[in-house]
Amino acid sequence: MSFDLDISDPYFAKAVALRQSFAAGAIAHDKAGGRPTEQLKLLKQSGLLTILIPREFGGQGQKWSKALRIAREFAKVDGSLGHLYGYHFGSVHSAHVNGSPEQAADLYRRSAEGNWFWGNARNSFSKTLFGKRDGDWYVLDGFKPFTSGSHVADYLQISWLDPTGEDYSFAAIPADRQGVTIHDDWDGIGQRQTGSGKVSFANVRVHESELLDRKSNAGKPFQSIGVLQQQSTLLNVFVGSAQGALIAARDYTREKSRPWIYSGVEKHTDDPWVKRTYGDLVIKTQAATLLADRALDALDEAWERGFDLTDEERGEAAIKVAAANAFAGETALEVTAKIFEVMGARSAVTANGFDRFWRNVRIHTLHNPAEYKTRNVGTWFLEGAHPEPGIFQ
Amino acid sequence: MSFDLDISDPYFAKAVALRQSFAAGAIAHDKAGGRPTEQLKLLKQSGLLTILIPREFGGQGQKWSKALRIAREFAKVDGSLGHLYGYHFGSVHSAHVNGSPEQAADLYRRSAEGNWFWGNARNSFSKTLFGKRDGDWYVLDGFKPFTSGSHVADYLQISWLDPTGEDYSFAAIPADRQGVTIHDDWDGIGQRQTGSGKVSFANVRVHESELLDRKSNAGKPFQSIGVLQQQSTLLNVFVGSAQGALIAARDYTREKSRPWIYSGVEKHTDDPWVKRTYGDLVIKTQAATLLADRALDALDEAWERGFDLTDEERGEAAIKVAAANAFAGETALEVTAKIFEVMGARSAVTANGFDRFWRNVRIHTLHNPAEYKTRNVGTWFLEGAHPEPGIFQ
Amino acid sequence: MSFDLDISDPYFAKAVALRQSFAAGAIAHDKAGGRPTEQLKLLKQSGLLTILIPREFGGQGQKWSKALRIAREFAKVDGSLGHLYGYHFGSVHSAHVNGSPEQAADLYRRSAEGNWFWGNARNSFSKTLFGKRDGDWYVLDGFKPFTSGSHVADYLQISWLDPTGEDYSFAAIPADRQGVTIHDDWDGIGQRQTGSGKVSFANVRVHESELLDRKSNAGKPFQSIGVLQQQSTLLNVFVGSAQGALIAARDYTREKSRPWIYSGVEKHTDDPWVKRTYGDLVIKTQAATLLADRALDALDEAWERGFDLTDEERGEAAIKVAAANAFAGETALEVTAKIFEVMGARSAVTANGFDRFWRNVRIHTLHNPAEYKTRNVGTWFLEGAHPEPGIFQ
Amino acid sequence: MSFDLDISDPYFAKAVALRQSFAAGAIAHDKAGGRPTEQLKLLKQSGLLTILIPREFGGQGQKWSKALRIAREFAKVDGSLGHLYGYHFGSVHSAHVNGSPEQAADLYRRSAEGNWFWGNARNSFSKTLFGKRDGDWYVLDGFKPFTSGSHVADYLQISWLDPTGEDYSFAAIPADRQGVTIHDDWDGIGQRQTGSGKVSFANVRVHESELLDRKSNAGKPFQSIGVLQQQSTLLNVFVGSAQGALIAARDYTREKSRPWIYSGVEKHTDDPWVKRTYGDLVIKTQAATLLADRALDALDEAWERGFDLTDEERGEAAIKVAAANAFAGETALEVTAKIFEVMGARSAVTANGFDRFWRNVRIHTLHNPAEYKTRNVGTWFLEGAHPEPGIFQ
Repeated sequence: MSFDLDISDPYFAKAVALRQSFAAGAIAHDKAGGRPTEQLKLLKQSGLLTILIPREFGGQGQKWSKALRIAREFAKVDGSLGHLYGYHFGSVHSAHVNGSPEQAADLYRRSAEGNWFWGNARNSFSKTLFGKRDGDWYVLDGFKPFTSGSHVADYLQISWLDPTGEDYSFAAIPADRQGVTIHDDWDGIGQRQTGSGKVSFANVRVHESELLDRKSNAGKPFQSIGVLQQQSTLLNVFVGSAQGALIAARDYTREKSRPWIYSGVEKHTDDPWVKRTYGDLVIKTQAATLLADRALDALDEAWERGFDLTDEERGEAAIKVAAANAFAGETALEVTAKIFEVMGARSAVTANGFDRFWRNVRIHTLHNPAEYKTRNVGTWFLEGAHPEPGIFQ
Repeated sequence: MSFDLDISDPYFAKAVALRQSFAAGAIAHDKAGGRPTEQLKLLKQSGLLTILIPREFGGQGQKWSKALRIAREFAKVDGSLGHLYGYHFGSVHSAHVNGSPEQAADLYRRSAEGNWFWGNARNSFSKTLFGKRDGDWYVLDGFKPFTSGSHVADYLQISWLDPTGEDYSFAAIPADRQGVTIHDDWDGIGQRQTGSGKVSFANVRVHESELLDRKSNAGKPFQSIGVLQQQSTLLNVFVGSAQGALIAARDYTREKSRPWIYSGVEKHTDDPWVKRTYGDLVIKTQAATLLADRALDALDEAWERGFDLTDEERGEAAIKVAAANAFAGETALEVTAKIFEVMGARSAVTANGFDRFWRNVRIHTLHNPAEYKTRNVGTWFLEGAHPEPGIFQ
Repeated sequence: MSFDLDISDPYFAKAVALRQSFAAGAIAHDKAGGRPTEQLKLLKQSGLLTILIPREFGGQGQKWSKALRIAREFAKVDGSLGHLYGYHFGSVHSAHVNGSPEQAADLYRRSAEGNWFWGNARNSFSKTLFGKRDGDWYVLDGFKPFTSGSHVADYLQISWLDPTGEDYSFAAIPADRQGVTIHDDWDGIGQRQTGSGKVSFANVRVHESELLDRKSNAGKPFQSIGVLQQQSTLLNVFVGSAQGALIAARDYTREKSRPWIYSGVEKHTDDPWVKRTYGDLVIKTQAATLLADRALDALDEAWERGFDLTDEERGEAAIKVAAANAFAGETALEVTAKIFEVMGARSAVTANGFDRFWRNVRIHTLHNPAEYKTRNVGTWFLEGAHPEPGIFQ
Repeated sequence: MSFDLDISDPYFAKAVALRQSFAAGAIAHDKAGGRPTEQLKLLKQSGLLTILIPREFGGQGQKWSKALRIAREFAKVDGSLGHLYGYHFGSVHSAHVNGSPEQAADLYRRSAEGNWFWGNARNSFSKTLFGKRDGDWYVLDGFKPFTSGSHVADYLQISWLDPTGEDYSFAAIPADRQGVTIHDDWDGIGQRQTGSGKVSFANVRVHESELLDRKSNAGKPFQSIGVLQQQSTLLNVFVGSAQGALIAARDYTREKSRPWIYSGVEKHTDDPWVKRTYGDLVIKTQAATLLADRALDALDEAWERGFDLTDEERGEAAIKVAAANAFAGETALEVTAKIFEVMGARSAVTANGFDRFWRNVRIHTLHNPAEYKTRNVGTWFLEGAHPEPGIFQ
């Protein structure tokens, strides 16, 4: 009826089937937290982990918008899966963006062959992991917080600071590299299977050939496109959460909700209040979806431009992503909170799991405050200026 | 920078030029009310009054979405012009939708040749105009309220009730038909040059050949498409008003606003509050624009389907129009009220005319309550049902 | 600094001390659900369970406003305790309102002596418990949902339907009456220690002397004052939750939050966004508090009027309670959701327990939709009419 | 039914009678702008201009809260009158606060005897009026903007800068002092009879005995209490405007509004949407009223403390005024915009004058941005700090 992917596309058909599988355990997985082992197995079987890898390297050469619409689809029932799936691709492409063409080719090929799932330990907000040079090697000690996907990863994108604490280095390494301990200690109020806890490093050796040193296209705007991809994952998880919450609430409302004692109607859905509330939330979610689609188009275009991407083009895409992100977050917060009002008191028991939508969105929106994204859009409108590329914009 | 029409399209180029002309007198015209004589002259010279008439009858065969984007463009500076321009086309096409093919051909041809501007006296909410049969003629007595465009019309679309007050008849007649008095007595708080006042009829004779009797395609969903066109005019006037208010406010803010005494900034646009407020309003206006664009696409498709349009297709278009309308109205109300906060106290003098945006939107949104449009979207989402075609949906 | 009870009042001093005790385990208790055994012990020791019982029967003869301000105080850290404490008094007074003076005296006296905690199984929305007459006894079979406080109650207020399902009977019985099974199976997303689960009745015998038959003052408005007391408990739990959430968030913000990376400030609380957000939430919570205080005054007055209370007076109090309830619920929902934005991403881990505020308010506000309370206020303003006394108004 | 002053108080009885008189011409006066000559005559006859002057000097020694509740009452129908009446007292008391006891006594006495109306030309935001010393005189040249009440004033409170542009001087002078030209050129979008235009000074001589030199209690917090009085006038005009708009809308809705075509109800007030909308606006307006009342209590207390007022006490009062002001402004904006939705399209003609409420509030709220008042409340909550006394806080 709405918010449906077009399943004449074979990738979307797979995504919809997977979403249906994920739905079954979503409430239990939210309660349990930890590792989405089962779901990851299904994901690997589906072949959807490699769809953005160029065909020449064994992938399917699809667009970013396709991958992130799939992340959105997963988030309809399980925000963690949406998050992990979207972030995965940021790491898959890290060598393409920040390494040499040879590194990119090699990692694309091995990732496709191995059907790898990528996690990351590259949060560059925290100054807690340091590496020092030792011949052709770097030796890493410390830890990283917020390492989404690390707990089920085959391969990791990582970053560390040099001993002076000034310069960041980036690399891609196997998740089982000696000295790496993945704590799987995430305990957020939502997004509970994202494994966004701690990874610690004790005398971990990284060879200089594993370094993604940004040299081949140093300083080009395209090198910071990963930020836009991350932000786009976030916003599509918001959109999917809002859509999924609405769908779940509608089904409950139709099947189980009873008309309010003073409503004078026989069917709960005949109450003007119920109609209006759903109408309002649906309209806002449609608006969020359109803004998200516009941002995905911008992301596809930016990606196609590759290293020719200009500052101006990167900036315009960043503004579209920021606008979509801020609006999607606000909408998803409102939708996931309000659905209870039109489902009624009996809906709010833990067995129904409806509160996971709000908890997922609430925690996930904190990773880049809407306030600052909104200011960026304002500055752009007032001055024509784009945000300086950085770790959140 | 944004909200700009693509002026590589020649129709849009003309529209932008006209909008610039209209801007000059917009504040004075709002104050004066009455007839947009000057603007209508420019509009006729531009050729934009005939663009939806099929080429075979002397028009340019453009799409509805083009006409209503132009209405939106006019509304950036003058809501009345947007309103009149959009409604004009509803009347131009009345014979096509509700008359015979011969009537349609005839009226298209004469309208194109005469470069007519159409007004209407067909509001069917008020039971105040009656007609009785007299041989091949109908004789009309009474009046019609809310007759937008009548005060400057060449031709009028009209409706009346039979003596029993049960059945409506429709016709198209010259605005100077004997017995017709156009009072030009509109005195709304906004949309002040729309001439939405009273037209009275004293012994007015309408020949049966002028009757648009709905017979040739009786009962087909396409016959109620005019409602969607009207609603689309409204919503694009809201969108244009929001866009125009933002642009006008931005220019004032940049050029004249002073930083608040406790802001600690030297330039008003450096105040985080100012950035955020603009950002928030811009994001919402972009969302409204995307919903409006989606609805215009639906309207184009529905129009192209013609009398093959199904109930289902008509219903889906109606829901898209309803969603866009409700969201655009809310957004425009918020934008047009809030701009003052970031312009400052000195902006709110009548000479600046900024309050006309709010007054225009405030009155224009009352013609079809967002509450009911929102309920329609809710019912559609909950039950899959479309609103029954009627005079507002 | 604000939202503080005046501890020169000895009852408030005790309440504040208890609130501090409750704070320590509040997060763990929310996680565990089940019975607030420990807290109830402290509550009994404090003497606060008897403060509304008239002095002549062994109580302290305090006002309702005092009891419900204490409920509000508890809700600052533990919504369940606020809920249980407020509801307790509704049951303590059930015989006073609906029984004979002798029953009231007897139950007041025994309740004070025994330092009883009262729960209830009298939800009259569900038609699931039936009783039939057997000589001087009623024999009850079936169950009651939403039996708040039953899991730790000494005494229960109950209600059942006669075999025709038309008339309700009310009584007060010991919680350990033979045949009563308290399932303690509540599993709401919030208010997790309220024990609002199921109580089942198998061949439970209630003597006619235990019946609160409403005869002594049949039909008087005072007999429905219990509804206003219940609604007042709800709204003060909302207010207390909002206050408590703000206080907890403020402490976290001051002690742990870091300035946002693009803020340009050194201290998070110097960010204009943080100031504004707190300011806005504080102002709304103050407004909610004032409306709640006004409603408490009305409740005190209504209680003092006793069986002389007129329809008009009852109606005016009901409107004040409705207004306070609707506003407090909306405010508490907004506050408990938004605090995260100004605390930051690290605040949202389960160990901090901040999400319990939102979950508590979200579920608790569902028990009487703001929509209908708001309509009641509207009808009163438009027509001067009061809501017909009923189980929620 | 609500929002009514208690007319058992003789001052309030007069105020209510005056409000009824003002109502008759309010729409015409809004349209005309200019001078409220007629209303001022009635005001003088009522004796309400002297009620805050101590009894010993010929006044009635009433409280500030009384005067500002009267301002609120006037604002129910005419925002300009509320504004002028409240501001008047700030000037009446200027000598008390900033002059010597002898000056205060003298001006109180003469003001009471002459039944003066005070205006002001003391806006200290604009550096446009300068004075230089000439013996015992100051000679003033330049102008002042925003000189509310000057156009009908008997006496004026004024301020000017010394030639260096650093120090402000204050004085009270007759409005017809030679060289003073009152332009009466105010043309705001609202508050149209406040005369908030320009006063120019050409070689105006002010004697040093007219100087209010702040010396007698130099540096005491009480010297900045005038700011709180001004802000309190503003906020009570907002509250009165919201109340008055609701009352006017209710009357229209009951008498003239027709049910919406798809509502299914026979009476417009039976539409759940209409009930809810009024209920919501009434609840918010009641909350605004309670916050305003709390701030008035604080103002009375601060005034009674006189020159003993401490920084802490002044600060606490300032926070209460700020909270009330921000909330009242937001509420009044929402109320005055939304009433149209439940009155319907026909209500929005200029003859009904309903839009004056919004225009009044919109312009009046710009004189001290809610953003900054809200930040002040946030800082107070976060840090316990009060705003530094200044011209707007």
